[in-house]
This record gives sequence, C-alpha cells and structure tokens, in this order.
Amino acid sequence: MEETKDAVSLVVVGSLALDTIATPAATREDVLGGSVSYACASASFFTRTGMVGIAGADFPDAGLEQFRKFGIDLQGLHQVPGKTFRWSGVYEQNMNNRRTLCTELNVFADFSPDLPEAYRRSPFLFLANIAPALQLRVLGQIHKPRFVAADTMDLWIKTARDSLMQLIAKVDLLLINDAEARHLTGKEHLVQAARQVLEWGPRYVIVKKGEHGSMLFSKSGAILVPAYPVEDVQDPTGAGDSFAGGFMGCLANAGKITEAAVRRAMAVGTVVASFAVEAFGLDRLATVTRADIDARDAEFLKMIRI
Amino acid sequence: MEETKDAVSLVVVGSLALDTIATPAATREDVLGGSVSYACASASFFTRTGMVGIAGADFPDAGLEQFRKFGIDLQGLHQVPGKTFRWSGVYEQNMNNRRTLCTELNVFADFSPDLPEAYRRSPFLFLANIAPALQLRVLGQIHKPRFVAADTMDLWIKTARDSLMQLIAKVDLLLINDAEARHLTGKEHLVQAARQVLEWGPRYVIVKKGEHGSMLFSKSGAILVPAYPVEDVQDPTGAGDSFAGGFMGCLANAGKITEAAVRRAMAVGTVVASFAVEAFGLDRLATVTRADIDARDAEFLKMIRI
Repeated sequence: MEETKDAVSLVVVGSLALDTIATPAATREDVLGGSVSYACASASFFTRTGMVGIAGADFPDAGLEQFRKFGIDLQGLHQVPGKTFRWSGVYEQNMNNRRTLCTELNVFADFSPDLPEAYRRSPFLFLANIAPALQLRVLGQIHKPRFVAADTMDLWIKTARDSLMQLIAKVDLLLINDAEARHLTGKEHLVQAARQVLEWGPRYVIVKKGEHGSMLFSKSGAILVPAYPVEDVQDPTGAGDSFAGGFMGCLANAGKITEAAVRRAMAVGTVVASFAVEAFGLDRLATVTRADIDARDAEFLKMIRI
Repeated sequence: MEETKDAVSLVVVGSLALDTIATPAATREDVLGGSVSYACASASFFTRTGMVGIAGADFPDAGLEQFRKFGIDLQGLHQVPGKTFRWSGVYEQNMNNRRTLCTELNVFADFSPDLPEAYRRSPFLFLANIAPALQLRVLGQIHKPRFVAADTMDLWIKTARDSLMQLIAKVDLLLINDAEARHLTGKEHLVQAARQVLEWGPRYVIVKKGEHGSMLFSKSGAILVPAYPVEDVQDPTGAGDSFAGGFMGCLANAGKITEAAVRRAMAVGTVVASFAVEAFGLDRLATVTRADIDARDAEFLKMIRI
C-alpha cells in the first residue's frame, strides 16, 4: 500500500485481525485488532512506524483509513483475496482471564512477508505476536537493525518451540507475559524465568503482568513499573501489544538505547496501554492525543515517584 | 511485662500466634506469628514500638526473648493461663493462595486489652488485624494520637461488619488486601473500592496486592509501589503485617505526615516485607540488620525510578 513521505524508524510485523470480543459489559463483532494494529497505533504517537501485515479482501476501508489517521506507513501492508484473520474471545468478570472461542487463520495461513525496500534499513524492529518462523523471516530481511524486540504467545511455545528458541537467541528484547514466561522456561518464579531467558541471548526481557504492571530484567538489574490504575476497563484486548508499541515507539524516538531511555519507554508503554483498554479495539487510541498521553504520563510519574 | 527505657512512639495491637505453616517446600509447627509479632518486629527497625497482645502459658520464652532482641517494648504484652492463639494454613504451589486449616482462639477468646499508662500518649497507633471491637477498645484508650492505621481481614468483614465500619470511620489509614477491599465495598475495581473507603472517613487507604505490590489512595491521588522481586519466597505469612509495621515504623520515625514521608514509608514497608517472606515466621527479620534494609531500599529505589 501507499507510503508516507518520511523514512520509517520502526517497523512492526504481526497479526492483523478482526476480533469478536465479549466482556461482561458488551459484545462487539469485527473489531479492528491484531498485534500489529495495536502496536503500530501505539508507536505512531512517537515515531514514524511501518506496518507489515496481511489483510483479506473483506478488510474494511474504515480500518485502513484509521491506520492512515494514526500516520502509520502502510507500504508493508498487503491486501489479498480471501478473508482477514479472525479471533474471538470472552473475558471473565474481573477482565484478567480470557478464553479464546475461535481462531480462523484465513489469509494468514499463507502469509510470507517481504519487506518493502524502504523498511530494510529501519533502525528499530518490533516482531509482534505472530508465528516465530514469520518473525525470523522478517528479521532476516532487515539490515543491521539497532534494536530488535519480539513478543510471542502460548500457542507458539507449544507448537513452534524450536523456531521460537532460534528467534529468542537473535533479539535484543523479549516481551512475554507472566504465564508465558513460566510456560516457556518451566520456572515458577518470574525472576528465575527472566534470568533463564537472558541466558538464551536477549539483553532485556520484559515480563508483562497485565493489571499488575511490568518488569524489565537485564544483566545489570530490574526495572519495575506498576500499571496505571484504569478505573473503567472496557476491553483488555491488545493491552500488551499497546504497551510494546508505546515502548518501541518511545525508544525509536529516543534513537539510542540508554538506561534512561529504556526507563522512559517502560512508563510510556504503560500509559499508552492504559488508554488502549478504555474502549474496544483501537477506539480510545483513535481519540487520544499526544497531549493526553503526556498529561497521563506526568500524572503516572507522580504516582510512582518515591 | 517489662518496659524499655524510652517512651514508645508507636503502639501496635494485634494477634499473637503460634502458627503451623505448610508451603510446597516445608511444614513448620508452632512458628512465632500473628499480626502483632510481624508488625512490631518490622516497626522496631525504625522506632520505639510497644506491643499490645496476649500470650498463653505455653508461649515459649524464646519468643519473648526474640521480641526483646528486636527492642520491642513488652509492657502491653500479657501472659495468662491457657493456650496461645493458634493458626494453621497451607500454601499452594505459587504461594499466592492459601487455605486456613484451623484457627484456635484460646486465650484470645477473652482478650480485653488495657493499655499501659505509658502507651496512652503514643503519637502513632497501628491496630493490626484482630477483632474490630478490640481495635476500637484500644483506640478509645489512646489520647489524641497523631496518626492511626488499622488492618482487617475477611473474617471481620463477614462477622463483625458493624464494628468494622465504626472503626473505619475513626482511623486515618485503612490497610486492606485486594480481595478484602472488593469484599468490603462490593466494588470489583480497586480504584472504585478505594474511593468508597475514603468516603467512609479515612484520609488514606492502602490496598495490598501481595507479590504485585501496593497502592495508596487519598483524595489527592494515588501512590503505586511494586513489590520487591524476592527470588526465593519461603513463607508469605505475615507479609502484609510486615509491610504495615515497616510503614508505620518509618512514619513514626519521621514524626509527621507529609506526602514525602508517606512515599518513603511505602517503599520501606515493601522492603521490610520482602525480607519477612525469605524465611518462616520472624526468622529472616531476626537476622536482618538495619544496614541490610537500607541497602535493599537503595536497590529497590533504583528499580522503580523512571
């Protein structure tokens, strides 16, 4: 699809989906979703972001229009015959637990991303949740990236462990949620799980704990960030992807990987995720402004300052 | 029992217990415990602390000796004929969930605390977990305290709601864990639950989330503190009481209630609790030094600084 005028500083590959989401309050069908949507939308507040993904013929124009409004570069987004990937899930009362009802791969079954030339020198790369083989394929097409992060999910830990382990050895940062960290490493305690991941190669691992915040581990120590206390969570879908997108967008904007930049990115990711869950899909991110983000960021920093 | 030479600046009333604790790793019998033990031991690192509680004739001298080593003032501790209060519980694999196997009130059934004269002008008072009627009784015996905090538990929310509500209206700070906050207020979301508690009177409410840290709410905002990531939790019993004891000890040492003092106390409570869970009962607090606490405090501040 079309390109924007500036070079991208962050490329994100991941799933593009139409989700059917049931929460205790409401059910919505064909909500714009998938890891790449949340991550790109979140990153777009901070840096020029290129989306790599695949949409079916049924993907709504309004969705593309939405991406453009975020300022996302869509050169890497391919629309092909067939149906868009679909996911449906239901959340329990407390919104922490969800059950997947149905997953239809559709056009994703044959997805084999080829990066546009303009993306191949992007300094920052985020391999959002998608099959590790595809993440590896995209990683192989980027020329000497400065910083590469990857996310994953339980499905790949179960069904594609070998390629996932290959990927983990090659990235600078692995993002993973608490249950997945335990599953992946076989270690119950998150500090031990994180240490195990660091031994496999990444300089950093971020363990995402949903409403309980996130923890970054590196050889030099840990950074602990609580979640922003959202009062009225409407839809937790994509919170982790939004965190990651905000984190990577902020880091790409900083341009270099210093400890201060990483700490900043943890807070910014937290704040962006807190907006994302306030409405279904991208609805809240679509109305929020950079000034809103900065204001909540300042409020959040006050909350966590000792 | 005997008094120490200096006036106490913090009085703590609560349960004194001999616990039988089963974790996935080990089972221990007659472990020195109860809310007043953990809270006084934790506070004793920071301020002169007086213990108000009741022990049976079977209470071991070694336990009293332990309290003395902490420097706890024992004028308010009464030893009477009969058996000491006993609790036994078992922790699940992840240490977050526990089941109470048995509670024997014993000498607690007729406990009716009368404060020593020397305690009645203590500026700080912590009403640790015990029946709300007893907390109210102690509160009524203190002359114009500067700051009063109370903790509670599910049992009292269920069985003594009226006196608990009376108590809540009279304290400056309510400490409560996440499940109890939901139970007490009927509100699923912790921010809403906390706001409800503030409407009942307290200036502050601290929601304790175990391994996920704690959140303080006041009319002017929130303070969010993650837990220190303890790598090898041996026994989570008393973590909340240790947090509260460290918090109140730190605040009593500061002597006044400023926002900065409250923030400091949140971090110190977190650090003291992180030591408490590293061994059964008071075993770790008994070997830790103020220098150890200060060192981990500095490490923790680095972890949470953005």
